[in-house]
Amino acid sequence: MAFPPIITFSSDFGSSGPYVGAVKGAILEICPQARIVDISHEISSHNILEGAFNLDCSYSYFPEGTIHLAVVDPGVGSERRGIVVSTDRYRFVGPDNGLFTLIYRREKVKQVISMESDRYLRETVSATFHGRDVFGPAAAWLACGLEPERLGPEVTDWRQLPLVLLAREEPGRIGGVVFQVDRFGNVITSVHDRGLRHLLGYEPVLVEFSAGGRRITRHCRTYADATEGELVYLKGSSGYYEIAVPEASAARILGLKVGDPVQVTVR
Amino acid sequence: MAFPPIITFSSDFGSSGPYVGAVKGAILEICPQARIVDISHEISSHNILEGAFNLDCSYSYFPEGTIHLAVVDPGVGSERRGIVVSTDRYRFVGPDNGLFTLIYRREKVKQVISMESDRYLRETVSATFHGRDVFGPAAAWLACGLEPERLGPEVTDWRQLPLVLLAREEPGRIGGVVFQVDRFGNVITSVHDRGLRHLLGYEPVLVEFSAGGRRITRHCRTYADATEGELVYLKGSSGYYEIAVPEASAARILGLKVGDPVQVTVR
Amino acid sequence: MAFPPIITFSSDFGSSGPYVGAVKGAILEICPQARIVDISHEISSHNILEGAFNLDCSYSYFPEGTIHLAVVDPGVGSERRGIVVSTDRYRFVGPDNGLFTLIYRREKVKQVISMESDRYLRETVSATFHGRDVFGPAAAWLACGLEPERLGPEVTDWRQLPLVLLAREEPGRIGGVVFQVDRFGNVITSVHDRGLRHLLGYEPVLVEFSAGGRRITRHCRTYADATEGELVYLKGSSGYYEIAVPEASAARILGLKVGDPVQVTVR
Repeated sequence: MAFPPIITFSSDFGSSGPYVGAVKGAILEICPQARIVDISHEISSHNILEGAFNLDCSYSYFPEGTIHLAVVDPGVGSERRGIVVSTDRYRFVGPDNGLFTLIYRREKVKQVISMESDRYLRETVSATFHGRDVFGPAAAWLACGLEPERLGPEVTDWRQLPLVLLAREEPGRIGGVVFQVDRFGNVITSVHDRGLRHLLGYEPVLVEFSAGGRRITRHCRTYADATEGELVYLKGSSGYYEIAVPEASAARILGLKVGDPVQVTVR
Repeated sequence: MAFPPIITFSSDFGSSGPYVGAVKGAILEICPQARIVDISHEISSHNILEGAFNLDCSYSYFPEGTIHLAVVDPGVGSERRGIVVSTDRYRFVGPDNGLFTLIYRREKVKQVISMESDRYLRETVSATFHGRDVFGPAAAWLACGLEPERLGPEVTDWRQLPLVLLAREEPGRIGGVVFQVDRFGNVITSVHDRGLRHLLGYEPVLVEFSAGGRRITRHCRTYADATEGELVYLKGSSGYYEIAVPEASAARILGLKVGDPVQVTVR
Repeated sequence: MAFPPIITFSSDFGSSGPYVGAVKGAILEICPQARIVDISHEISSHNILEGAFNLDCSYSYFPEGTIHLAVVDPGVGSERRGIVVSTDRYRFVGPDNGLFTLIYRREKVKQVISMESDRYLRETVSATFHGRDVFGPAAAWLACGLEPERLGPEVTDWRQLPLVLLAREEPGRIGGVVFQVDRFGNVITSVHDRGLRHLLGYEPVLVEFSAGGRRITRHCRTYADATEGELVYLKGSSGYYEIAVPEASAARILGLKVGDPVQVTVR
């Protein structure tokens, strides 16, 4: 790598508290030249689905060779494994709890390593903070050139979220889920052109969305095309359709949160 | 530049969600050596005035050559232009919607470029996320040495907020606006010694502030000079006067938010 | 130093607003090669105890030579001093108001300098923002190799919080305080194995915690060991015991906030 290695860091640790800082310290202690780039630490507590979506909308923009450290880890201290996932362009480090589900669906996985060696951990591993004691150090070692194989054996039975992004509910009606509510209150759904095409075998025309007991029939290309207060759907910047109300919170108006169902009617 | 170029990054994207991370990735993909410094991503949604104020209180402390990327962009996807503003010491990249109004007032503008070339964008430009697809890449190209002229033609009709920072309302009474409410609840106003001197043609003595239906007559040099619970005004760290209540929220007590009017009485 | 110097930065400035960005600019203007690593800027406003705890749980993970800049500064503009604390591995820069209390207890202090020279400040020092005008610049000068002695005379009367982390209340009953409430609602207390051993002169067995009028008798090794909704105590990742309720907020259930008392019963 020509430039100091980049480690992105996503978690549900929150920006308050010392947790994020402690992980960064543990990384820099091992690999002082690493450049840590925060993605977000405000993923909802223990929400693996939201963490998976967050990663899905950000990882692919980084330069080849980037290491993506992601920690949303309700099972910390239990028997769940830590893993390193290698794809053509990136490596992903975190708990094997489904957080990388959307990576498995989009990327060709070259190798998944179960982190069983205790040689590259912090000297004392706490029961509750593997971000600092296990995953951060592993990402740092990789950034400094360690081969993933040194961290443990290859495995093939990694965990995926039982996530049905899109399902045919009845002819012309496809079900999806809410992936994220952003700070503008926009409701980002799992409905994606690529996914619809794959499910249906043809390129559908979208007719309307149903969510929170309401039908949303107005399609816009941009937020600026909608009038204030109007419920609209539009294709978001990562290709996922979202439901929005200009200058208001669609999530609040529709009473929706991450994981809730949405439907789309297509022709 | 002796050191890797610095790109500051301000936005209303929020710290949750993948948006900030995606922009950083898009920058580093183009200019891996760039150093991205977050200013704030918690500017109130679509609040161009607050974004302008944020920039005004931070940009000038950075080393010469710094590129300031700022995105508060309610009109994304509409006809509003992207621009690069060059001053003696800095470059500013963002939407041409008035976000740089306070820069135009404080700095000698050397050149404003309208970003019309599509050569330096991401391959696919989404309709809703120009931070990632247009502005971030432009900042990255500039950080790597591209001349702004390559991004498009020079223009002279850039947009400014119709922002009256200070207006003479009656003799000895000057009107201003709330620029920002900080997390301590301090109400930062557009009243600035330099502005008052410019408006009045002499150096006035401040007598009292009026805001939210209350008169604030007590002037303090520092927060520590005021007693708990007392409404005071003081000169803030960027020269703007602010209204504060030690250990309480002046904004809540006065019922004020960004854009609300304040008055100052002077002799 | 082989690599660009690291400056960690903790404050109560909040992630919104221009304050954090202005400090970073002031640092980079003086020492452009410095690498600024955010710990947290969401320490509760003016809460020195929480700031001290935040630092305590993060500083020790950073590489030797790291400079820790910490600003929680309710007395800004008053007579309180600025100090530079040097220990074997680190330097700490900030106000002399007790923010470094836990550092003094854990580390061998080699030298404390009172920042009295005005040579290394920003040209104009505001009355309300020493983070940008005094402490940030001092940290930057140190990062660029300046000896702390150049900033002022050595002193020995630094301030400590009158903080009783642990006190014997009656035989077998030890009092402590709430250090922090994290975003999961976990209540982190000042009860620490090392502290208990030091206070009692032997290695005690913990029997139960009392807090918010409730007794918590169930001890867990990890969050995953507890059942949903159950009040438990466990040893946190920094050695401090915490009270938690899986998938709920122990702080809300117990009505606890930073500084509130807790008790632990030991044998």
